[in-house]
Amino acid sequence: MAMKENGHKNGYRVIGTRPIRPDGVDKVTGRAVFGADLHLPGLLYGKVLRSPHAHARILSIDTSAAEALPGVKAVITAADLPQVADKVKSLGESVGNLRYMSENTLAREKALYHGHPIAAVAAENIHVAEEAVNLIEVEYEPLPVVLDGREAMQPGAPILIQGLRTDELGKLGSEPTNVAAHIQHKRGDVEAGFAEADVIIEREFRTETVHQGYIEPQNGVALWNDDGHIHIWCSTQGAFAVRSQISDLLRAPISQVTVTPLEIGGAFGGKINVYLEPLAALLSRKAGHRPVKMTMTRAEVLKASGPTSGSWIRVRMGAKKDGRITAAQAELVYEAGGFPGSPVGAGAGVILAPYRLDNLQIDGYDVLVNRPKASAYRAPGGTNAAYAAEAVADELAEALGMDPIDFRLINAVKEGDRRADGPMLPRIGYIETLQAIKNHPHYRQPLEGPHRGRGVAVGFWFNWGGKSSVSASVNEDGTVNLVEGSTDIGGSRASIAMQLAETLGIAAEDVHPQVVGTDLVGYNDVTGGSRTTYGTGYAVHALGVKLNEIMRELAADLWDVDVEEVRVEGGVFSAGDRSITFKELVAQGSDTPITASAATHPKDAGPAFAVHCVDVEVDPETGKVTILRYTAAQDVGTAIHPSYVEGQIQGAVAQGVGWGLNEEYIYDEEGHLLNASLLDYRMPTAPDLPMIDAVLVEEAPTPGHPFGVRGVGEVSIIPPPAALANAIHRATGVRMTALPMSPSRVMKAMIEH
Amino acid sequence: MAMKENGHKNGYRVIGTRPIRPDGVDKVTGRAVFGADLHLPGLLYGKVLRSPHAHARILSIDTSAAEALPGVKAVITAADLPQVADKVKSLGESVGNLRYMSENTLAREKALYHGHPIAAVAAENIHVAEEAVNLIEVEYEPLPVVLDGREAMQPGAPILIQGLRTDELGKLGSEPTNVAAHIQHKRGDVEAGFAEADVIIEREFRTETVHQGYIEPQNGVALWNDDGHIHIWCSTQGAFAVRSQISDLLRAPISQVTVTPLEIGGAFGGKINVYLEPLAALLSRKAGHRPVKMTMTRAEVLKASGPTSGSWIRVRMGAKKDGRITAAQAELVYEAGGFPGSPVGAGAGVILAPYRLDNLQIDGYDVLVNRPKASAYRAPGGTNAAYAAEAVADELAEALGMDPIDFRLINAVKEGDRRADGPMLPRIGYIETLQAIKNHPHYRQPLEGPHRGRGVAVGFWFNWGGKSSVSASVNEDGTVNLVEGSTDIGGSRASIAMQLAETLGIAAEDVHPQVVGTDLVGYNDVTGGSRTTYGTGYAVHALGVKLNEIMRELAADLWDVDVEEVRVEGGVFSAGDRSITFKELVAQGSDTPITASAATHPKDAGPAFAVHCVDVEVDPETGKVTILRYTAAQDVGTAIHPSYVEGQIQGAVAQGVGWGLNEEYIYDEEGHLLNASLLDYRMPTAPDLPMIDAVLVEEAPTPGHPFGVRGVGEVSIIPPPAALANAIHRATGVRMTALPMSPSRVMKAMIEH
Repeated sequence: MAMKENGHKNGYRVIGTRPIRPDGVDKVTGRAVFGADLHLPGLLYGKVLRSPHAHARILSIDTSAAEALPGVKAVITAADLPQVADKVKSLGESVGNLRYMSENTLAREKALYHGHPIAAVAAENIHVAEEAVNLIEVEYEPLPVVLDGREAMQPGAPILIQGLRTDELGKLGSEPTNVAAHIQHKRGDVEAGFAEADVIIEREFRTETVHQGYIEPQNGVALWNDDGHIHIWCSTQGAFAVRSQISDLLRAPISQVTVTPLEIGGAFGGKINVYLEPLAALLSRKAGHRPVKMTMTRAEVLKASGPTSGSWIRVRMGAKKDGRITAAQAELVYEAGGFPGSPVGAGAGVILAPYRLDNLQIDGYDVLVNRPKASAYRAPGGTNAAYAAEAVADELAEALGMDPIDFRLINAVKEGDRRADGPMLPRIGYIETLQAIKNHPHYRQPLEGPHRGRGVAVGFWFNWGGKSSVSASVNEDGTVNLVEGSTDIGGSRASIAMQLAETLGIAAEDVHPQVVGTDLVGYNDVTGGSRTTYGTGYAVHALGVKLNEIMRELAADLWDVDVEEVRVEGGVFSAGDRSITFKELVAQGSDTPITASAATHPKDAGPAFAVHCVDVEVDPETGKVTILRYTAAQDVGTAIHPSYVEGQIQGAVAQGVGWGLNEEYIYDEEGHLLNASLLDYRMPTAPDLPMIDAVLVEEAPTPGHPFGVRGVGEVSIIPPPAALANAIHRATGVRMTALPMSPSRVMKAMIEH
Repeated sequence: MAMKENGHKNGYRVIGTRPIRPDGVDKVTGRAVFGADLHLPGLLYGKVLRSPHAHARILSIDTSAAEALPGVKAVITAADLPQVADKVKSLGESVGNLRYMSENTLAREKALYHGHPIAAVAAENIHVAEEAVNLIEVEYEPLPVVLDGREAMQPGAPILIQGLRTDELGKLGSEPTNVAAHIQHKRGDVEAGFAEADVIIEREFRTETVHQGYIEPQNGVALWNDDGHIHIWCSTQGAFAVRSQISDLLRAPISQVTVTPLEIGGAFGGKINVYLEPLAALLSRKAGHRPVKMTMTRAEVLKASGPTSGSWIRVRMGAKKDGRITAAQAELVYEAGGFPGSPVGAGAGVILAPYRLDNLQIDGYDVLVNRPKASAYRAPGGTNAAYAAEAVADELAEALGMDPIDFRLINAVKEGDRRADGPMLPRIGYIETLQAIKNHPHYRQPLEGPHRGRGVAVGFWFNWGGKSSVSASVNEDGTVNLVEGSTDIGGSRASIAMQLAETLGIAAEDVHPQVVGTDLVGYNDVTGGSRTTYGTGYAVHALGVKLNEIMRELAADLWDVDVEEVRVEGGVFSAGDRSITFKELVAQGSDTPITASAATHPKDAGPAFAVHCVDVEVDPETGKVTILRYTAAQDVGTAIHPSYVEGQIQGAVAQGVGWGLNEEYIYDEEGHLLNASLLDYRMPTAPDLPMIDAVLVEEAPTPGHPFGVRGVGEVSIIPPPAALANAIHRATGVRMTALPMSPSRVMKAMIEH
């Protein structure tokens, strides 16, 4: 890290410091308004009736008894949803076919998973709504269930969507299938490459469906007003994405939909698609334009929001004795759930991305099964993929007698290389991140003791730029009010405000950010893809430049000089021997209010790399894996607010650890989810985790971004399961080829070993 | 009115039409959120203890019993208000000395009027708060009371503010005085002018204190948050004015104050100054940062908000036989209430403004009396002034045997003339407005029948431009979201949105305006001075021009031509033989969100003139005046939304009629307000008024404004009392020289006549 004048790295005054987050006090005191806190006059409460079957034809729905219950104001079924065409929409990270989105909102002809919404009720209170839901009579014809992706690909497997026709390579086929997509990346001659190899390792892996596990369940309040305008208040990663979905699903003009994002208690990709919002809106209209609030229980969240795919992955890698990989091949089968849209595309992009390869083939399959429709989860599809590839890479290094970091250094991609999925890499800090672990005291200190092992693994993530709009106005006291549309999940109010403060040369505390809804700011893409600090930071820099231009004109007027003579640097305006700070200049007064807006769409967000090292101890009596030490190095470009970057890395590791060691959806043979509670769906708690040491590698600021920001929110969820598997191997001699590596499974593997 | 293509006047497509107001449905259905509708978690209720004396020294305040009452959370007195310096602040229309503003908020050493706030309480509910207020023990030393402005100017009168020192011409004097200011306008040689005159009329007039009479009482909710940030929600004409006052009164940085304006149920100038908001904030902080709601009762509104001044006015005018005025002189004594700040300055500017004068002298006095501190009321100070001058002008015309409209036409100011108070007049439509009445069927049809009379009078008002900031973003469907900071009292959401729609060439309904608070938009001056449709309209035009520039670039990209080749007119972009509408161009998609902001400060709002004609019948048995017909012509520049312009004129006339015929503050000798209810303070109701015919004179669009807008909200309150007095004279032979011209007073005058 280059240190310049005034003690701040790279000469920054604000970037790299750790101010208090603007929303901190309200979050700590409980003042912050989340969806469940919202109360409107005349509020009704909604409840969803969900399918008890994982796969069933809906023969009839009788809502009469529910409608007759006193206190019930409206009952809806799919018949209340407009019929929509097969319009494919891109919603930031998530791509959805509109008809599928509609049918996932309310099942029309078939229930495709346990918990699939069938009908919904609005009533004077939640108790009446719950009672009414039980009075709806649905006649089902249960159908055979398929839960496993590879089984669903077999001829004769139960078909979920009869209309789905896809051939081997994702084109329109002639027969019904559960394979919604097949993507492929090929380069060079794989078999020739393997022929050159001195060592070849091939393994198959299985991972289970896992959930994001955000604290705050899905919720939404809707008012379909008398004037036809639909108002939505909800917990979302993107108010504009909700607006677009509501507009499409309910066939309402964009201009007749207003979405106001409330505070958000975690999301991790799971709060991009709508679930309750369209139901609440329909209920509101049917209930005489009264507002309707809906909130999921935890069981509903687990059963019927969007977890990420379980998967089956085969990886084959070959290398020469010098460590150079000669060929690599991967096959990924991702379970999409009841409707198309697993993150297999991203998985296929991630799986071999850290390696410089002349010969490769990657095949990915998006396969329907009777599970909830997958949605995004932090670096969607990346963790399963890397789990497979990094275990094989580890085994390969071991077979070659090489240090696993050195093995990755030999094969590491760098600027100018082509990624496995095609694009050319810009300046990245992957090699520096590998070296950060190699030189870290953790890695340099040998691990001693029985049943202990150290594992390393690496991860790659694409990152994203996206569209952002912002506006700002300067107060008379020289502070700045900033209006942004990026919902703040992980501290982005601070990280965006800091970039504006840096651009203007004022203190972080002098920028007051406000996150607003769709009526009050220009279009913003979702907070996702690690884009917000990067992309909305890009926008506030443009905004700051505009404000500085206005300020230069003020200075020129003040000094009666030509505006071209006025220079600005670090918040100081100068011309000749005169100079004045931003705040002093504001204090001089402006005849016209100082305000500006900016909208940007940077295309080339720098991709991110992470290198993790973990020490574990495996209890030989129980198979329980205890994490002794965890160090996560990440290529972060420039850390705007280092505490939040560290927090992102620590949070991602915690989720990766849960995915690796304990979390899984458990179904019975009929497709009933058996562990739909946080007692049975076992996420890591504080005692399960050591302090996670986050190493911020800032050697490679992202080219093209004014401050070199690189998205940091996702990549560190990718290495943990692989790093843990590799550590468990060192500790026990066992290679775990399925997640989660829970005590019973580890015990079983040790016994079988 | 010039008619151009497509049938709209001046070629406008949107301007001049009458679309439904955007807030209409919510106002009609009760969905709109006013201050009294606001509920926050943990809300406390505040109540004010008010002085029972009109003038008294406060010897001691004992709050212990109130504090001990269960449910009471905080009690405050002036000791809780920061001591503030004598900083003079300009708040749009209203100018206030900060120390006086503080002492009007909570009396420090003396109570200066009946109802002056002494202390305030916050409690769990309003009943406990009311009970607690009664438990506060205040020891007063009653002082002699002065209620009349001219009496207060006499030597030996009770002095309200010992520190006030002003000499004859408003400079610092040596002796305590109640005369806070003396302003003077002089031109030519008045005595020489009168010497030339063939006829001279001199009369004295008295007008009483009157109130704006808005439906919605003052209210405010405040939260002084744990992080030091003060949030205010209130009914106000200007969120930024509230922010500034809160910042000054409570010594909080501007950046630590957020003001959110709620819907506003009338204001007319009375909702610029704060009353409850600072008390609620102080109570919130003292009560452990819980939000506090305060609402005035109607009695509190009448006793202790800001009515407009009672006054004494002497006018002397002389004219030649040909009708030409040779000299005019006016003396105005305005009652400021307990603190300086009557609208005498404006009254002095208005009183002779319609007349071209070579010789004039105007003297205005701002005088303290034991009444509530005056604040702005629709064309503040203008109505009293015109009442006096227009009655004298009428008498002069009568004495000369001239038609009163012809008399005004002979003496009318026009473009290039200097106003009585100095400034040069730009293009105005005064003569056209006089002619509109002269040629109107109402004026051309003789009035017949006993006890009937017709009166005319004219009025002038300054109008104002002011600062406005706006921002907007274009939705994917080609509609536009507009963010503005001008609170909408009389339909300005519509009139501003229409100007943006006109600029962009889209439909009025395609612009969706939102009024927001101080954090979400740049600085905006208050909605007052008839400035909003003019000034914020000016800003949205600038905004539309910016958006059109972005759209031109999009069109240039689309057609691969240079941006200079793209022209735009009426929402159609063209280059060569290609053309595309705004909406079509948006539908082509934009890589970057389309958003812009603008801030403007137009200086020369065109002044407004009104000419009114009224027919009355006076009941010889009771003195009751019945209005038979009322026609109000007004110089409106360009009527953006004619229905709202007509509504402004009709509302102004209604208020002027109330002022003229019935409204007055009635005090006993000790300064107790005797009629603090709407039963006893007699405002006109529907049966008191005929349909008021509003004639929109659009011959003189305001120069410098892109659409020629002229402020329309105020001037028509000025002529009614004079027009009525002149009509009563024709009906009865009596010249009424005091307002209100209530039945008992008219009866008394008829008997004495």
